[in-house]
Amino acid sequence: MRALVFDKKLEVKDVENPVRQKGEALIKVSIAGICNTDHEIIKGYVPGFSGILGHEFLGVVEESDDKDLVGKRVAGEINLACGACEFCRKGLGRHCSNRSVLGIINKNGAFAEYLTLPEPNVFAIPDSIPDTHAIFVEPLAAALEIIEQVNIAPEHKVLLIGDGKLALLIAFVLKTTGCGLTVLGKHREKLDFARDYGMATVLFDDFTPALHDIVIEASGNRSGFMTALDSVKPRGTIVLKSTYAEPFAFNPFQIVVNELTVVGSRCGRFEDAIRFLQSHRLPIDRLISAEFGLDEAEKAFALSARPDTLKVLLKI
Amino acid sequence: MRALVFDKKLEVKDVENPVRQKGEALIKVSIAGICNTDHEIIKGYVPGFSGILGHEFLGVVEESDDKDLVGKRVAGEINLACGACEFCRKGLGRHCSNRSVLGIINKNGAFAEYLTLPEPNVFAIPDSIPDTHAIFVEPLAAALEIIEQVNIAPEHKVLLIGDGKLALLIAFVLKTTGCGLTVLGKHREKLDFARDYGMATVLFDDFTPALHDIVIEASGNRSGFMTALDSVKPRGTIVLKSTYAEPFAFNPFQIVVNELTVVGSRCGRFEDAIRFLQSHRLPIDRLISAEFGLDEAEKAFALSARPDTLKVLLKI
Repeated sequence: MRALVFDKKLEVKDVENPVRQKGEALIKVSIAGICNTDHEIIKGYVPGFSGILGHEFLGVVEESDDKDLVGKRVAGEINLACGACEFCRKGLGRHCSNRSVLGIINKNGAFAEYLTLPEPNVFAIPDSIPDTHAIFVEPLAAALEIIEQVNIAPEHKVLLIGDGKLALLIAFVLKTTGCGLTVLGKHREKLDFARDYGMATVLFDDFTPALHDIVIEASGNRSGFMTALDSVKPRGTIVLKSTYAEPFAFNPFQIVVNELTVVGSRCGRFEDAIRFLQSHRLPIDRLISAEFGLDEAEKAFALSARPDTLKVLLKI
Repeated sequence: MRALVFDKKLEVKDVENPVRQKGEALIKVSIAGICNTDHEIIKGYVPGFSGILGHEFLGVVEESDDKDLVGKRVAGEINLACGACEFCRKGLGRHCSNRSVLGIINKNGAFAEYLTLPEPNVFAIPDSIPDTHAIFVEPLAAALEIIEQVNIAPEHKVLLIGDGKLALLIAFVLKTTGCGLTVLGKHREKLDFARDYGMATVLFDDFTPALHDIVIEASGNRSGFMTALDSVKPRGTIVLKSTYAEPFAFNPFQIVVNELTVVGSRCGRFEDAIRFLQSHRLPIDRLISAEFGLDEAEKAFALSARPDTLKVLLKI
């Protein structure tokens, strides 16, 4: 099959089809999305991965022990848990210490004609959700994880730092809470999108720090992190939603003196994201910048890396 | 009156007595304790303070509008709040944006014969608590703040990093929760104290990282901070109880990926600490390394700076 393989460099080539094991589903991938994590792997910020990239996808199950799955359009939970450790036993397989992660840690990913996943990781997508929207189940689950972890209510003044793909999904999620939301970003056209959707927005250069109850840091850069510290009230909460490419100089002084709570937030639950897509009318189409074929992966990655680009899809 | 004044350097000298304002108590200081924050001010890590140092004290009220206070042995809440701002209105005067802080920010402190404090900051000390123990009300309140902020229960495996004065008070507090506590420190003799009190202890050099539900970082140094990140379970909690002299290189990666919660923790409630001292028999005497007169302040500070020293008191 054709696949986009990363092994120090990116290359589309022919590789052997994956072989389905007992308890797994064999999925024919229809479409997949490029995520910032893919770029970070390519740049070497996420070390140790070589193999087929990609973890946001929609596909159709061709083979499975669970006959109900066969023929279904599905998305897939990316964390492959051992099922036996302390965290798995608590229902926190996403934190399994022995996990592999689709297209990220030790498991071939979705930029390929076929992939395999354990059946519990496979989620049928209802007919009302189009293929291209289903690509957003994984990042939307990550956005929803925030409101699972932190209570966000209409009484809260909330600052969202970042205007990328994930940040905009977070903005949609936050809007449903009724909180007093401001989106702070560096890109006028992305902020315009949030404003069209009825949100207050501020360009970084025009921002005067003001104190918020909750700050969501989704920019992934040091200036965003520092702005979060300066923009939260004493006893307030900062949610860290992005990873950072490199260490930076930092003194936890403000966290201690202002008794802040800093909450790290990563992946969320697929079932919640699917339900959210069914019950909220999100302008997902505007989040898609372009679609390419798998053989145009190089062009797709180059476009996806540009700061004014939102989601780039690969049709497999 | 005699006072220990910091103005780029430390000096015991004669200064004018403070003048009591309406609503304030004039307190004759009996005894005061040297805290790490005093050392940090002297080293210039807490910038901007000049005046009389000291914020842990026991004294006797000589004058007050509230006649019930006159003649009482008292300790004092160190944060002087405006009473009008958003945080004061919520009962969070310790986070008042306009606050001054006794011996730390813009307010003469306790290493002097007299000090003044607003009456709401003044707490009568019950007869059952001796003078030298009352010095520990302020740091004990800070230790108790942890269990006000974070639920710590017998089901939790807890690591306390640090074996200084504050860390040992925290250890006493944590012990009352029934949690599975390990104290990690660099000083054998201080750890022996914790062990004599029935706690599990480990020397830093002998420590093999293991995962804990909750880690309290009270060492105030980078290696303690990094050990906290490496010793907490996914979805676990780190409490930062110390400030850090200088920034250090840091990548929030582990916080995000392991979905950690980091909670800053500073001052606590005096009434809670007084009640705690009344209801628990703490080995406070062993926390006191030495007592000096005010005119021996230089010697007292030199001893207090040594890593094997616990609390040093100044009799005024």
